[in-house]
Amino acid sequence: MEEKKQKRIVVALGHNALGYTTTEQWNAVRTTAKKLADLVEAGYQLTITHSNGPQVSMIHKAMTELHRIYIDYTPAPMSVCSAMSQGYAGYDIQNALKAELLTRGITTPVSTILTQVSVDPYDEAFYAPTKKIGRYMSKEDADNEVKKGNYVVEEPGKGYLRVVATPKPLDILEIDAIRLLVDNGQIVICCGGGGIPVIIQDGALQGASAVIEKDDIAGKLASDLKSDELVILTSVPNVYLNFGREDQKAIERMNVEEAKQYIAEGQFGPDDMLPKINAAIQYLAARPDGRTIITTADNVIDALNGKAGTTITA
Amino acid sequence: MEEKKQKRIVVALGHNALGYTTTEQWNAVRTTAKKLADLVEAGYQLTITHSNGPQVSMIHKAMTELHRIYIDYTPAPMSVCSAMSQGYAGYDIQNALKAELLTRGITTPVSTILTQVSVDPYDEAFYAPTKKIGRYMSKEDADNEVKKGNYVVEEPGKGYLRVVATPKPLDILEIDAIRLLVDNGQIVICCGGGGIPVIIQDGALQGASAVIEKDDIAGKLASDLKSDELVILTSVPNVYLNFGREDQKAIERMNVEEAKQYIAEGQFGPDDMLPKINAAIQYLAARPDGRTIITTADNVIDALNGKAGTTITA
Repeated sequence: MEEKKQKRIVVALGHNALGYTTTEQWNAVRTTAKKLADLVEAGYQLTITHSNGPQVSMIHKAMTELHRIYIDYTPAPMSVCSAMSQGYAGYDIQNALKAELLTRGITTPVSTILTQVSVDPYDEAFYAPTKKIGRYMSKEDADNEVKKGNYVVEEPGKGYLRVVATPKPLDILEIDAIRLLVDNGQIVICCGGGGIPVIIQDGALQGASAVIEKDDIAGKLASDLKSDELVILTSVPNVYLNFGREDQKAIERMNVEEAKQYIAEGQFGPDDMLPKINAAIQYLAARPDGRTIITTADNVIDALNGKAGTTITA
Repeated sequence: MEEKKQKRIVVALGHNALGYTTTEQWNAVRTTAKKLADLVEAGYQLTITHSNGPQVSMIHKAMTELHRIYIDYTPAPMSVCSAMSQGYAGYDIQNALKAELLTRGITTPVSTILTQVSVDPYDEAFYAPTKKIGRYMSKEDADNEVKKGNYVVEEPGKGYLRVVATPKPLDILEIDAIRLLVDNGQIVICCGGGGIPVIIQDGALQGASAVIEKDDIAGKLASDLKSDELVILTSVPNVYLNFGREDQKAIERMNVEEAKQYIAEGQFGPDDMLPKINAAIQYLAARPDGRTIITTADNVIDALNGKAGTTITA
């Protein structure tokens, strides 16, 4: 049998890999785990990151209700809710993946590293928060959020949503631990929900009321780990031109120059495909011989073999 | 300067190291972090574990209220609440310790590994749950818990409390990751709240409605890591004979045989000092040249130098 060097890949899981409630997540991660185990069986060495929008929103809501009912329970800041969500999603993923691997006789260690990511307090994102979080609020609740110093936006006919800043990641604070595990062939789940954003100042690591885009951190992680591939799993099989229109067309391959051209044309939704493409560009700048794949979990093996999905190269 | 080989110690933090609410925890960990950083400066290599009783109880309550208010949010099992609490406490500890170390110019990596611990489904603890969790309930709420298959106990004049089993830990599932980090000189926070108890059966790792004693897992962790010392930090400076009585007497040193004799005499409270002494005995059986120290965070350096606290040897 020919010895094959393991290809190192960073896999970013989207919302659909986890679901929205504890029950949905428990079921969804079992399906996700099978796809991830397929990748391990195919000889890939995985580092896994994931979104946490619904998770952190659920936890934030639970902690807010707790404080409302039992006033002696102090509120939980965003950073604490994010940490809880990393514990929650990380546990379900490592549990399901470990079980799936054991069933297949694979003993590769799997673990989750709680991850903090530093951000710049002067990042321009803090001056214009745009990331919608949580559920629709009444005008009264929205006014209360504003009084607390938070930002809200109104969506006509639907209600108000809190918005937070999405600063760029500077450094993954636990990268030494992550890298050591990865360098030794272990599977690591990390940077959940983009990582817990912290601002380093006055000798403290202050949790920031912000969210780092999951795709941004996936690109950063793939760069830091010198990953051979960055695989972004989402709910659609490809990146598209003219998405949602009659002349919609799947992109099979593109290079960074083409990607930048499409961005300039406004082809990619700012809350949807654009962060993924930007992550690809960032990663390929750091590792020009790498590849970025964007596709569904179902198509990922085919995509890695060049038979499905969208492949982006430098 | 004489080169000194780093002594490897497992430090188990009790409730008072973390506090009861998000604000208390944030303040408490900063104090705790200073003591832990003192240990690092004194040349000890730390692996840190911690209790999570108040944390998991707070989260369980929050998730229960969430489900009560928004029925589409499915309830969170104990194992999920435990995972969230590992994220919550792990983040605060790693954040505060990293900040404290950076302030002192120490760059040793610090990270938290989410930890699952296997337990035996036939552990006799499952037939007689004794660990009290959460807050006092009304008779009606208690009846509902019993209907769900949970155990409750009544405390006359106070109300009802849910009780869960405290099975013995079998294996720390993420030990490969923990060991690799420790072997490379990194500081690891792990096995929070005793670890998330799971039962391995039918190809799944099923979260168990149980709690592993924090001291039990600290002993197991110290054994697995071949730790030079097991340091159990608590709210009292020593282990005592005749605790709380007029003739109370601090124990400075004892060996395993003496400890067993005192246990037979009923000297140690079953919810308090007994699990700590049992952890010491278990660890010293695995590592007869090791030491167990039981004391407060304030006294820990003196205790390691033989000038305070209770030292237990084989």
